Amino acid sequence: MKEFQLIECYFNHRGPTRRDVKLSIGDDCALVQPAENKSIAISCDTLVENVHFFPDIPPQALGYKALAVNLSDLAAMGAEPAWMTLALTLPEVNETWLSGFSEGLFEAADYYGIALIGGDTTRGPRAINITVHGQVPQGKALTRHGAKAGDWIYVTGTLGDSALGLDLIRCVQHARAEHKEFLINRHYRPTPRVLAGQSLRSLASSAIDLSDGFISDIGHILKASKVGAVVDVGAIPLSRAMQDTVSEEHALGYALTGGEDYELLFTVPEAQKGALETALSHAGTKFVRVGQICAGSKLKLQLNGELFTPPYHGFEHF
Amino acid sequence: MKEFQLIECYFNHRGPTRRDVKLSIGDDCALVQPAENKSIAISCDTLVENVHFFPDIPPQALGYKALAVNLSDLAAMGAEPAWMTLALTLPEVNETWLSGFSEGLFEAADYYGIALIGGDTTRGPRAINITVHGQVPQGKALTRHGAKAGDWIYVTGTLGDSALGLDLIRCVQHARAEHKEFLINRHYRPTPRVLAGQSLRSLASSAIDLSDGFISDIGHILKASKVGAVVDVGAIPLSRAMQDTVSEEHALGYALTGGEDYELLFTVPEAQKGALETALSHAGTKFVRVGQICAGSKLKLQLNGELFTPPYHGFEHF
Repeated sequence: MKEFQLIECYFNHRGPTRRDVKLSIGDDCALVQPAENKSIAISCDTLVENVHFFPDIPPQALGYKALAVNLSDLAAMGAEPAWMTLALTLPEVNETWLSGFSEGLFEAADYYGIALIGGDTTRGPRAINITVHGQVPQGKALTRHGAKAGDWIYVTGTLGDSALGLDLIRCVQHARAEHKEFLINRHYRPTPRVLAGQSLRSLASSAIDLSDGFISDIGHILKASKVGAVVDVGAIPLSRAMQDTVSEEHALGYALTGGEDYELLFTVPEAQKGALETALSHAGTKFVRVGQICAGSKLKLQLNGELFTPPYHGFEHF
Repeated sequence: MKEFQLIECYFNHRGPTRRDVKLSIGDDCALVQPAENKSIAISCDTLVENVHFFPDIPPQALGYKALAVNLSDLAAMGAEPAWMTLALTLPEVNETWLSGFSEGLFEAADYYGIALIGGDTTRGPRAINITVHGQVPQGKALTRHGAKAGDWIYVTGTLGDSALGLDLIRCVQHARAEHKEFLINRHYRPTPRVLAGQSLRSLASSAIDLSDGFISDIGHILKASKVGAVVDVGAIPLSRAMQDTVSEEHALGYALTGGEDYELLFTVPEAQKGALETALSHAGTKFVRVGQICAGSKLKLQLNGELFTPPYHGFEHF
């Protein structure tokens, strides 16, 4: 099967149709027409087999997740998903795999309204590279560098589920059947907080998505914003499944240092606290306050008023 | 060495500074501000070790070429290079390699004015994925589907040098020292015809860059435009180095089916032939007429008025 037929078969003319896509797959470049007075947010992520995923991941989950983690970056900027390119490196042309992968990919693409406009298919060790493009009104993008002393720190959803889910897949942990499905789903099919991110545009002073783990990711905000933070570890949101499956100490380990939750961490000035409730309730996303930005550069974790030392470290690719 | 330090060290704050880049490497996404009334051309290409390049390619050449082949796609659309992302998958952190690779990459980036705005670094089998973005006035992009019967077919530069250069590197062919350097250079450091592509915006009815080989690539234009073509193989431009190194038959084999020349193939209506001379002389790019578009769907190759059968086949990734 030739490269061009392969692309035609599984990826061409699928996903949402957007009027701002003037030319899609099939030429030297795609052509898109950005909206007036919008900035374009661009991000790319590579998932490599045996590094970011194991060979036994269901192809449908991989397709969904490969896009979801990129959409999460758009969410963290408050950008609206628009266009993506897909570079797929595959050891062989396996039609069952391609069918499952593309099904998962387009499930996410359709839901979040992002059009596949181009790509590249190559023979080689399995890897997926997606570059996403989103639009955000000029000057309204959320960044990592706007947090100020006194701002409140929030996170969406519950933390640590994805890392615990991965340990369940690896059989390093065990959970009751109903929790197991939920937790594995949190690992395989993370929910990018796209609407929540857009709702935060005029409210949050900074934002980031939780991909490397809470401690590692809040560190990026503190460094970029040149501030410190005090976090009440007892306020970190834990799922019922997490609490039923492991001890509190282990739960906090997963929640603080386990990666791939793809929840949002954001800071909000005191003056915007009220508006925040209204905005995020429209997006239907749960969120909770976990701490406060302060002067300095250090992250101070507290539990019941005492200094808290987390049990693990964050995830680094190298 | 941690991923973030690695990126910081070799890729951050290098390359041209552009005023339309509002936020570069270091946040969840980059932010760019497209010019008014412009479309954005987007293309991505992956180069995988042992598929697109051999492990012995000098890292500087690889860095240059990885960007050049993407710029060639922008050239084929008549787009002006603007922004790029780089996803680098590396088996280990080798500072000599990274230093050479980034030097080659930024040499091309500086020359063509394209800013590196984001990326991703991953451990794994060596692969380079670049997504480029260019700008083109609305409705002025060159595509593959505009060729009409009667249009003249042109190519820039000389063809086949890159494939012969690769055979010299592999020691399958031998050449005189002065030709050897030229030909290997044509393989390692192709010249994307960026200015020529922009000059063709209001003149050419279709365009493509020659990456897979002349026969394969003109086939894309014929299919997309629903036309046929007659090509005079004797008019295909061959370099002095090519002519001095191999027989005419072999030279035509390289020129017609060898890939990676990254010259432009384009069609021009009779009415624009005069304007073409003026436009491309400004860009300083040599070009020659090699045939004419006709009705039908077939490619007819002629040499001295007789039907010509090419000795090899085009390159397919799968």
